[in-house]
Amino acid sequence: MIIDCHGHYTTEPGKLFNFRDKQLAGLADASRKPTSDNLGITDDEIKASIEGAQRKQQKERGTDLTIFSPRASGMAHHVGTEAVSQQWTKICNDLVYRVTELFPQNFIGVCQLPQHPGVSPANCVKELERCVKELGFVGCNLSPDPSGGYWQDPPMTDKFWYPIYEKMCELDVPAMVHVSSSCNPCFHATGAHYINGDTTAFMQLITGGEKLFKDFPNLRFIIPHGGGAVPYHWGRYRGLAQDMGKPPIEDWLMKHVFFDTCVYHQPGINLLAEVIPADNILFASEMVGAVKGIDPKSGHNYDDTRRYVDKLKVSEGDKKKIFETNVYKVYPRVKERMKKVGLA
Amino acid sequence: MIIDCHGHYTTEPGKLFNFRDKQLAGLADASRKPTSDNLGITDDEIKASIEGAQRKQQKERGTDLTIFSPRASGMAHHVGTEAVSQQWTKICNDLVYRVTELFPQNFIGVCQLPQHPGVSPANCVKELERCVKELGFVGCNLSPDPSGGYWQDPPMTDKFWYPIYEKMCELDVPAMVHVSSSCNPCFHATGAHYINGDTTAFMQLITGGEKLFKDFPNLRFIIPHGGGAVPYHWGRYRGLAQDMGKPPIEDWLMKHVFFDTCVYHQPGINLLAEVIPADNILFASEMVGAVKGIDPKSGHNYDDTRRYVDKLKVSEGDKKKIFETNVYKVYPRVKERMKKVGLA
Repeated sequence: MIIDCHGHYTTEPGKLFNFRDKQLAGLADASRKPTSDNLGITDDEIKASIEGAQRKQQKERGTDLTIFSPRASGMAHHVGTEAVSQQWTKICNDLVYRVTELFPQNFIGVCQLPQHPGVSPANCVKELERCVKELGFVGCNLSPDPSGGYWQDPPMTDKFWYPIYEKMCELDVPAMVHVSSSCNPCFHATGAHYINGDTTAFMQLITGGEKLFKDFPNLRFIIPHGGGAVPYHWGRYRGLAQDMGKPPIEDWLMKHVFFDTCVYHQPGINLLAEVIPADNILFASEMVGAVKGIDPKSGHNYDDTRRYVDKLKVSEGDKKKIFETNVYKVYPRVKERMKKVGLA
Repeated sequence: MIIDCHGHYTTEPGKLFNFRDKQLAGLADASRKPTSDNLGITDDEIKASIEGAQRKQQKERGTDLTIFSPRASGMAHHVGTEAVSQQWTKICNDLVYRVTELFPQNFIGVCQLPQHPGVSPANCVKELERCVKELGFVGCNLSPDPSGGYWQDPPMTDKFWYPIYEKMCELDVPAMVHVSSSCNPCFHATGAHYINGDTTAFMQLITGGEKLFKDFPNLRFIIPHGGGAVPYHWGRYRGLAQDMGKPPIEDWLMKHVFFDTCVYHQPGINLLAEVIPADNILFASEMVGAVKGIDPKSGHNYDDTRRYVDKLKVSEGDKKKIFETNVYKVYPRVKERMKKVGLA
């Protein structure tokens, strides 16, 4: 069993975008607002959008199950108003739910949250609860920067964020720390903002995490894209924590933080596995995602990360942790959902 | 000959900070302004500040020459007014000049620039020219984010930046792309803002660099801290460029961009040398800098990067490029300065 913990619904039927256009047009002219939350997307349209893309790649690459969430750059928490974010989030989550119902053996849901810059994450609690309790989702994507590249909310260790952490712990679900699109022209979304978001979050957790994880002993974060710059600069992060008088980060921070394998070349994955304990690595590809092309050097898709992990010189036990069993530890509800759909 | 291309004067005599306090106090109360730009720092004070720190470490680590600039976090372009930045920059550069005159065999100057958020880099041209022509400096540190973590100026490929590029090319000096301190509570300076700055700049150059380097065929940038997240995500960057329809980045971008070796553990340096051509790597330690401690795993300072480079499995020719000769290519004025002080 190979579980990909990081996949987005990036092949959404066009009707979703028609809705979005009307929704945003409605900000300028209320008469343009969509008249209904019903997108008019049929099951066949959803099936076609998945079968030709994510499901096809699962089959080709030999992966089984993807933890699946709405398009990350689509979350766009900063666009419009909080009410827009609330409505849009519900619609995107409901669409992912339909994927998980149509392909229960292959996709398990993770939700986006109706964040909005400057608004308390308390306002996200209800949607998280709905997605977990009613839709069978197993986690959420939490953006540390709902402003879309201007970083105006407090660091992730601030009490500002506590309401959502309380609910995450109560439901026993983790968050993937994932920014959305960038409206700051300095930051390319997938090439800068995403990676910076990962790096920034990890450093926030070094700085203020001791208190945070004392307050929430069961709080767990997945930092995607291989942990941003962190494994490459592992000496810097270990050293900065040490200079601050913190205990070794391996001993406390890494009980709460996990990195995925969305690193698109063999040397990067090798480094990740060399410096980060296998217990903290979760297989992922982010497909169909940030990089779509074929690497002329390998002849395979850049994002076909299974090939890189297959080639890792680690024990079979560690490989099984990375490909499968770490997920059960980080997302306990995955096992529950698998039982429900006959996978376990 | 081992040349460290990235050192900062982080052991400045306290009188510099007394001046800075008065300078900034003067913003609130003009009567607090310093009455003179003369800091009252003696040559002996400068000697002591260097001999017990940077010069001591050069000797202990067996490096010879450091390309030396004012404290990066001290540049703080966003603090006060443009006039404050202009005055402060001149003073910091003059202090580095005194170091290079007192230790001509061991330090060569690089200047900070009097940047200020929203102000044209045209206003930095005069100071760059002064430092190169009058003080014998060989390059500059250019911040892609003078706002200190809010990223409000245009990307580095925008014409906004052209006036400083024109002067750099005329003088044949490169810029190290280096942000300063962060006044955004989300970004730890050395743990997030620095690394994000590096990653962001590289992605800006992928996106808009073809035009930029056509306009300035001789423009050269050093991206410090091992290139931020870039080498770890080399597949992502190659793939993103490819998805955008750009030629392979090795063929054009890497004629203008160089990474230093400020990566504080062996696996990180190994990765850097594995994926980035030796022609694009410049030895550096950033000492006395971001991380001051001793790694209990190695028993040596995290920032003693010479040890990591020594252990690289690359040819002696490549090692010589990294330790020495690439510097002559990227900073042509280094050779000139070395001749002047009897080093070449």
